[in-house]
Amino acid sequence: MRDVAVVGVGVTDFGELWDKSLRTIWAEAALAALADAGVEKIDLITIGCMSPGLFVGQEHLASLLADELGMAGTAASRVESACASGGLALRTGFAEVASGLSDTVLVTGVEKMNDVDGADATYALGTAADQEWEGFHGITFPGLYAMLARAHMQRYGTTVEQFAAVAVKNHANGLLNPHAQYHLKLTVEAALQATMVADPLRLMDCSPVTDGAAALVLTTVEKAEKMAGNRPIVKISGSGLATDTISLANRDDLTELKAVRVAGERAYAMAGKKAEDLDVVEVHDCFTIAEIMATEALGLFGPGEGGKAAEDGLTAINGKIPVNTSGGLKSKGHPVGATGVAQAAEIVTQLRGEAGDRQVAGAKTGLAQNMGGSGGSSIVHILEVAS
Amino acid sequence: MRDVAVVGVGVTDFGELWDKSLRTIWAEAALAALADAGVEKIDLITIGCMSPGLFVGQEHLASLLADELGMAGTAASRVESACASGGLALRTGFAEVASGLSDTVLVTGVEKMNDVDGADATYALGTAADQEWEGFHGITFPGLYAMLARAHMQRYGTTVEQFAAVAVKNHANGLLNPHAQYHLKLTVEAALQATMVADPLRLMDCSPVTDGAAALVLTTVEKAEKMAGNRPIVKISGSGLATDTISLANRDDLTELKAVRVAGERAYAMAGKKAEDLDVVEVHDCFTIAEIMATEALGLFGPGEGGKAAEDGLTAINGKIPVNTSGGLKSKGHPVGATGVAQAAEIVTQLRGEAGDRQVAGAKTGLAQNMGGSGGSSIVHILEVAS
Repeated sequence: MRDVAVVGVGVTDFGELWDKSLRTIWAEAALAALADAGVEKIDLITIGCMSPGLFVGQEHLASLLADELGMAGTAASRVESACASGGLALRTGFAEVASGLSDTVLVTGVEKMNDVDGADATYALGTAADQEWEGFHGITFPGLYAMLARAHMQRYGTTVEQFAAVAVKNHANGLLNPHAQYHLKLTVEAALQATMVADPLRLMDCSPVTDGAAALVLTTVEKAEKMAGNRPIVKISGSGLATDTISLANRDDLTELKAVRVAGERAYAMAGKKAEDLDVVEVHDCFTIAEIMATEALGLFGPGEGGKAAEDGLTAINGKIPVNTSGGLKSKGHPVGATGVAQAAEIVTQLRGEAGDRQVAGAKTGLAQNMGGSGGSSIVHILEVAS
Repeated sequence: MRDVAVVGVGVTDFGELWDKSLRTIWAEAALAALADAGVEKIDLITIGCMSPGLFVGQEHLASLLADELGMAGTAASRVESACASGGLALRTGFAEVASGLSDTVLVTGVEKMNDVDGADATYALGTAADQEWEGFHGITFPGLYAMLARAHMQRYGTTVEQFAAVAVKNHANGLLNPHAQYHLKLTVEAALQATMVADPLRLMDCSPVTDGAAALVLTTVEKAEKMAGNRPIVKISGSGLATDTISLANRDDLTELKAVRVAGERAYAMAGKKAEDLDVVEVHDCFTIAEIMATEALGLFGPGEGGKAAEDGLTAINGKIPVNTSGGLKSKGHPVGATGVAQAAEIVTQLRGEAGDRQVAGAKTGLAQNMGGSGGSSIVHILEVAS
C-alpha cells in the first residue's frame, strides 16, 4: 500500500447560497483545491453527496461535475453514506491512491440543501433513517437524537447545560472561521432559552440546513515530496469505516455510538496511534449530544464524561484536546455531503499551521470523524505531518 | 497492487418483484454470493444503486443493508454513477482489495424500480441526464438515445432492421437465462411492428423497468488459490472508468460513445489485452443502438460496423464475439444499480464454464461494460481465468 498525502484544500463559504447552484459551488471548491495544490492533471474525481436526487432532482454527479470542471473524460465517482458521504469520498480516494489505481485524486463533497422547501429538506434528510421502521412513524432526526440525548442523561447525568456548552464553544470557534455559516457569539443562557425542537434538544443544539462544498487533492507522499514549496506534508495514516444498525430500536445500547467506536478503532490501528496522540479533532456534531457521544466513542474521554469535559473547557481551542476548531457542523454549517471533506480540510489546515486565529499551536496529528444518520455509519480518518 | 479474484456470484430473478422489498432482494443476492464463495467474514460491502431516494424514499443503504444481512458493524459504502452504479461498486471493491485496505469485499448492486408509479420512474431515471439543460426541456432517455440512433443512421446507414437484430439476439439469449425478466421468442418482424416510443426506437429497442439485485465476492488471487474446490479462478485484470459530457448538446460527435472508448482503453491497457483477445462480452444495451455503439467503442467492430455485425450474427453465442449472452439489459432486465454487477456475474459464470445452455465454449477472457446516462460515464472491467 502506497503512502497517501493531502496536497490541496478548498472550501467554499457555507450558508444559504441562493445565487449559486450545486455545480457552481462544487466547482468553486474543486478549483480552489487544485490551485492550492498547484496540480492540473488528475486521474479521478470522487464526490460525496447525500441526496442530489431529492434535494435538486439531479443524479449522475460523476458525469455532471467532471464536465462542469472542463474535465469530461476524467474518471469520476459519487459515493453516499448519508451525512458521512464526504468521509466516504475521502476513503474512496485514499484507496485509489494507496492501491496505485490512481496517482492523483480530487476528493470532493457537496450539498445544495436550500433549494427545496423546508418540509422536503426534512424528508430528504429523513431518508438516512430506516424508512420502513422509523420514518414510517413520522420521526425525523431531531427526534432520534433527542432519544439518544435522553438515554445519555439518564445513564450518566449529562445535562442540558453541557449540551449548551458544546454549542457555545463551537459558535466561539466559528467566529474565527471566515467560511462559517454563522458568526454569532452565543451564551449558555441564550442557548438554554432557544426554541424547543425535540425535547431536550433546542434550536441551539441542532446544526442548520446549509449549502456548501469542500475539496482535497490527494497524491502519493513520494510525489508530494517532489512538489514545490515548504509547507508540511500531511499524510493520511489511518482510515476506518464501520456501520451500526440503521434503526435505533435494534441497538443494544443507546448511550454509545458503536459505529464511531469501531471506525475509530480501525483508524487508530492502521495509524498506530491512540487517542492521547491527537492534537486536534473534528467530530460530527449534527446535534450537541452527537459531539459529546463522539468524543467518548473515540476515547478522548471515558463513557459519560464527554458532557463534563465540554463544560470544563477541555475541548476548547486552548483546552486539553481541541474539538471542532472549525466551528463544527453547529456553527460552520452542515451541507451534508460536504461535511466529511470539510472536516478533513480543517485538520489539514491545522497541521499545516495555516488556521490563523483558530490555530492549535504545534498540532502534528489530527482526526476527523464523520457520521451518517443516527450513527448507522461512521468514517474516521487520522492525518499527521509526515516526518 | 495485489491481484484480485472473483470467488462468489449471486443473482436474483429479475422482473416485477411486487412481493419483495429493496432490502429483501439485495440480501437474497448477497447471501447467494457468500454461499457460492463459501465465505462468511467480509471486510467491506460495496453497494451500487442509482436512486433509492427517488425510487423507494430510502438513502443510507450502507447502514441499512449491512444491518439487513446481520452484519451491522461491517464497513459498507454505496456508490452511484446513474445506470453505471453497479460497475462503480465493482471498481470500488477492486480498489479496496488491490490496495490492501480490505481482504474480502462483497460487491453488490440493487434497484427496486417498480414500487413507484410509471411517471415517477421516468423522472427518477431522467435525473441521470443534465436536469438544467436537458431534463428542463422535458426530454427523457428514449428521446436522448433516439437522437444518438438518428445520428448513427445518418452517418453510417445503420438501419432499424439492425436495431431489431440486436433485440432478437438478446431475447434469444434471455430464453437460456433462468433469471431473465422476459422469456420470449422475438422475431425481427415483431420488433419492427412494436409500439413506437421515440422515433426510430420502438418498444423492442428499449430495456424495461426492473427490480433485481446481483452480488460478487472479491478477494486476493492468493487467498482464492487456497480456497477449496476445483473451479477456475477468475481474476480482474483491467478496470477502466471514464466520463463524457453529461449533456448530448456539448458533444463533438454523437456517433461515438467516447466514455466507453476511453474506459475501454484504460481497461485494455491495465490488462495488457486487445479486443481480439476477448471470448465473451457483456455491454450496456439499455437501447439497441447502445449495444451497437458500445461494440464499436470497445473496438470489437470498426466505426459504423456494429449494426451490420449484429445483423450478420457475429455477436450471437456461436458468433465471432458473443455479446450479451445473459440476454442483456433488453431481455434479462435492467435494475439500474444492479446491472453492472450482473454483467460481471455473467462473465464470471462464463469463464467458470458454468453458463449451461448459453455457455461460450472455452471462454478464457471476458469484458463487462456498464454505462451511465446517455454515455456520460462508463466503467469497463476485463476478467480472465488466472493461469
